[in-house]
Amino acid sequence: MEAESFDIVRIEERVRKNISDSVAKETPLTIFLNGQKYVTLFCTPDKPKYLAVGFLRSEGLLVDKDDIKSIRVNSQRSAVRVNTKSKRIPVEGLTLKRFTSGSGKGASWYFTQESTQAEDYQKVSARIKIPAKTISDLMKTFQRGSKLFTATGGVHCAALCDVKNIILLNEDVGRHNAIDKTFGEAMLKSIPTNDKILLTSGRVSSEMLTKAAKEGVPIVASISAPTDLAISLARSLGMTLIGFARDKGMNVYSGEWRIE
Amino acid sequence: MEAESFDIVRIEERVRKNISDSVAKETPLTIFLNGQKYVTLFCTPDKPKYLAVGFLRSEGLLVDKDDIKSIRVNSQRSAVRVNTKSKRIPVEGLTLKRFTSGSGKGASWYFTQESTQAEDYQKVSARIKIPAKTISDLMKTFQRGSKLFTATGGVHCAALCDVKNIILLNEDVGRHNAIDKTFGEAMLKSIPTNDKILLTSGRVSSEMLTKAAKEGVPIVASISAPTDLAISLARSLGMTLIGFARDKGMNVYSGEWRIE
Repeated sequence: MEAESFDIVRIEERVRKNISDSVAKETPLTIFLNGQKYVTLFCTPDKPKYLAVGFLRSEGLLVDKDDIKSIRVNSQRSAVRVNTKSKRIPVEGLTLKRFTSGSGKGASWYFTQESTQAEDYQKVSARIKIPAKTISDLMKTFQRGSKLFTATGGVHCAALCDVKNIILLNEDVGRHNAIDKTFGEAMLKSIPTNDKILLTSGRVSSEMLTKAAKEGVPIVASISAPTDLAISLARSLGMTLIGFARDKGMNVYSGEWRIE
Repeated sequence: MEAESFDIVRIEERVRKNISDSVAKETPLTIFLNGQKYVTLFCTPDKPKYLAVGFLRSEGLLVDKDDIKSIRVNSQRSAVRVNTKSKRIPVEGLTLKRFTSGSGKGASWYFTQESTQAEDYQKVSARIKIPAKTISDLMKTFQRGSKLFTATGGVHCAALCDVKNIILLNEDVGRHNAIDKTFGEAMLKSIPTNDKILLTSGRVSSEMLTKAAKEGVPIVASISAPTDLAISLARSLGMTLIGFARDKGMNVYSGEWRIE
């Protein structure tokens, strides 16, 4: 488990107790693309390969699995080296972006092609439908599925589902990372994403929404709230966006027709 | 209020209703330092001046208020232009790589020297003490204090307190931004931070902790969980770190002696 035990003091009203508390690990992971250092992400240390691949794909630097020549994980140095056949490197038409999963030694900035203009993304056309009850059931399983959250209360989760089951589930101290790990895992396992549902524990900002849009995911459902920009993008791109999916209720912000 | 109303569908069990929902706004804000475009942050659009100043200060690019020559906010273009007497640009102590795109949109990529090594920060020495009950009371006021959270459920908050009252409170769709706004506001209002308490609604990762460390803040208290790296840093730097400060309980991860 990606948690560490700390001896801490628990205070409740006037009572102080020395207890042991389970805390989520956070570690820097440096991603190299074709020999060039690209970014250092602060993340939960599990599944570095999925995180690296998902992150590079989200950045538009890795188109598909076939483009990968090699992936080497150096656990001691906390680094992943991805080499591609296309020898792509991060240079053109990029804007500087702050990575939000933490900050530390190395880059806390990177370039991105990211746009919040709907016309820069393909519309999502999948005709899948899913009953509201299934969304609620998937969310229940999702929330129970994160052992690290149960132990620490300090991580975010993301999952990829079909209309019946959770297929992939990932956890991370950063909500961006949890989503990147999930799409990275889907890519490496050749699981199509354009007929799936993305579940997330985190708020849905424009960045979360565009990550899903790039994967053609038709339905995004969150336990938490979306931003106005995420809703506008989802509406323009024909995506179904659900927020506050808790217990048996949910808010459908976009693409209600996919919810039966 | 930094919220927008959306017509959405609320589903509860088998009942569907058309309702109006208040959603937090998210907008890109571009920060220029001495004429040079530095970064575009996605944020809640209020208090762009505080965000820009707090952000530049957190990056080590703005040492104090006296260094500021001018700050101009262009709301229409969602930009803040900060000019400093020292004419500092984001190069010093940094490894700079510059790429220029064909479109004329020059873009730069900075490797910051930001560190998660405790020896790169000054130890926090403030001898202030505060009763656990006061922390709980401040947290209660803090949670009630965010009107935007109450309306949308989609923002993070940060506050600066003395041992009795909340002095500054800021909200943002990003938890980093809420903290940057708070320290930016403190700087522009010449409020010392090295005898204060930082309250945050968000998880405390290493980056949150180092933001507080740079301001010499002795006590950081969060509603949510810290990471192992944040705890280790707090212990090395002599800071008091509190997590899960909810109702009348809290976990003290570091510097318990400041909590009476």
